[in-house]
Amino acid sequence: MNDIKEIIQALIKFRDERDWAQFHTAKDLALALNIEAGELLEAFLWKSSEQADINKVKEELADVIAFALLLAEKYDLDVKQIVLEKIKQNAQKYPADKSRGSAKKYTEL
Amino acid sequence: MNDIKEIIQALIKFRDERDWAQFHTAKDLALALNIEAGELLEAFLWKSSEQADINKVKEELADVIAFALLLAEKYDLDVKQIVLEKIKQNAQKYPADKSRGSAKKYTEL
Amino acid sequence: MNDIKEIIQALIKFRDERDWAQFHTAKDLALALNIEAGELLEAFLWKSSEQADINKVKEELADVIAFALLLAEKYDLDVKQIVLEKIKQNAQKYPADKSRGSAKKYTEL
Amino acid sequence: MNDIKEIIQALIKFRDERDWAQFHTAKDLALALNIEAGELLEAFLWKSSEQADINKVKEELADVIAFALLLAEKYDLDVKQIVLEKIKQNAQKYPADKSRGSAKKYTEL
Repeated sequence: MNDIKEIIQALIKFRDERDWAQFHTAKDLALALNIEAGELLEAFLWKSSEQADINKVKEELADVIAFALLLAEKYDLDVKQIVLEKIKQNAQKYPADKSRGSAKKYTEL
Repeated sequence: MNDIKEIIQALIKFRDERDWAQFHTAKDLALALNIEAGELLEAFLWKSSEQADINKVKEELADVIAFALLLAEKYDLDVKQIVLEKIKQNAQKYPADKSRGSAKKYTEL
Repeated sequence: MNDIKEIIQALIKFRDERDWAQFHTAKDLALALNIEAGELLEAFLWKSSEQADINKVKEELADVIAFALLLAEKYDLDVKQIVLEKIKQNAQKYPADKSRGSAKKYTEL
Repeated sequence: MNDIKEIIQALIKFRDERDWAQFHTAKDLALALNIEAGELLEAFLWKSSEQADINKVKEELADVIAFALLLAEKYDLDVKQIVLEKIKQNAQKYPADKSRGSAKKYTEL
């Protein structure tokens, strides 16, 4: 079994032991993901990247990924497939020769 | 090779073909993740979960996961390990018998 | 003196008594605002609007507004003017007759 | 009439001309605020504060403040009062002598 499936199964087991599927609407999972993303951001507030507390980064990133995977599972999305597809789309928006070394948004290239 | 490693390699390849590593500080990756999480949330704005545009969810979720994995790679974190560890921690904060069927935060249990 | 100016002066006084201006770059104020917006969102997680804790809403909304005003002050922006201008812009994106009773984004009208 | 009231009245007028009150639940206003906060953050992505596009900052900050005020109005909160109260609370969490020149969170002081 691949690792993404393995993580999702562990998340589902944790959720079902608590009978929490009833709260996990897609909309609320998206809220949860945003809340955890904000907590991750807090690890960098008033700080440079180097000053961030790695343990806090690790814990909040784990929460972000957990809710992202639960949302993917909710819609029966194949995580590898959707990310590889998005990379392909982005490759068209950001052709390597035009965007090399530039932080500009594709709308400004 | 497992899925997560495969996705990360594709992301790194895309990044390096554009010479973008210079912009990808940990702090800015956390910003990017938050921005994409906000775009994901937009798929649900003024709507019920059922009314959300699945294509938008798919694309924005892919972006969220991409930045989450780039951040994990930045810190050399093993994604499966950190999520499984977090589940263990959460199991202590939320004992199944106390939290079953309840949406309360652990501080209110 | 109008109320927005009065609030900003109280925020500046609090900041300067702690010598915190050094941390308040525009970028970090934008991070702080996002973090507080996430905490505000938490008041609604797994809940309907009616179930939200009003005290939490009040406190987190106060934090959001505080950082928004500090950011406006940073750029010497007149809050009333920028919001009224934005309303004018939005009136063009969302003509009343086309958007009445519709939650669609202007790009879909 | 004070500034905040004047802005809120303009927002309400804009909303009611489009019959949008039906979509503006407190929860969705909190979502909208988070989405706009993310767009504000985008003005600083891959950039220093000095490199941010001031026009984008101005427009997204206007959106953030608009939704914050609509949420305050929803709960009939007095914006000046809740921010001044929060400053008082924060003064207890962050005594000037302990927190001067320090970016630490109150839990670490």
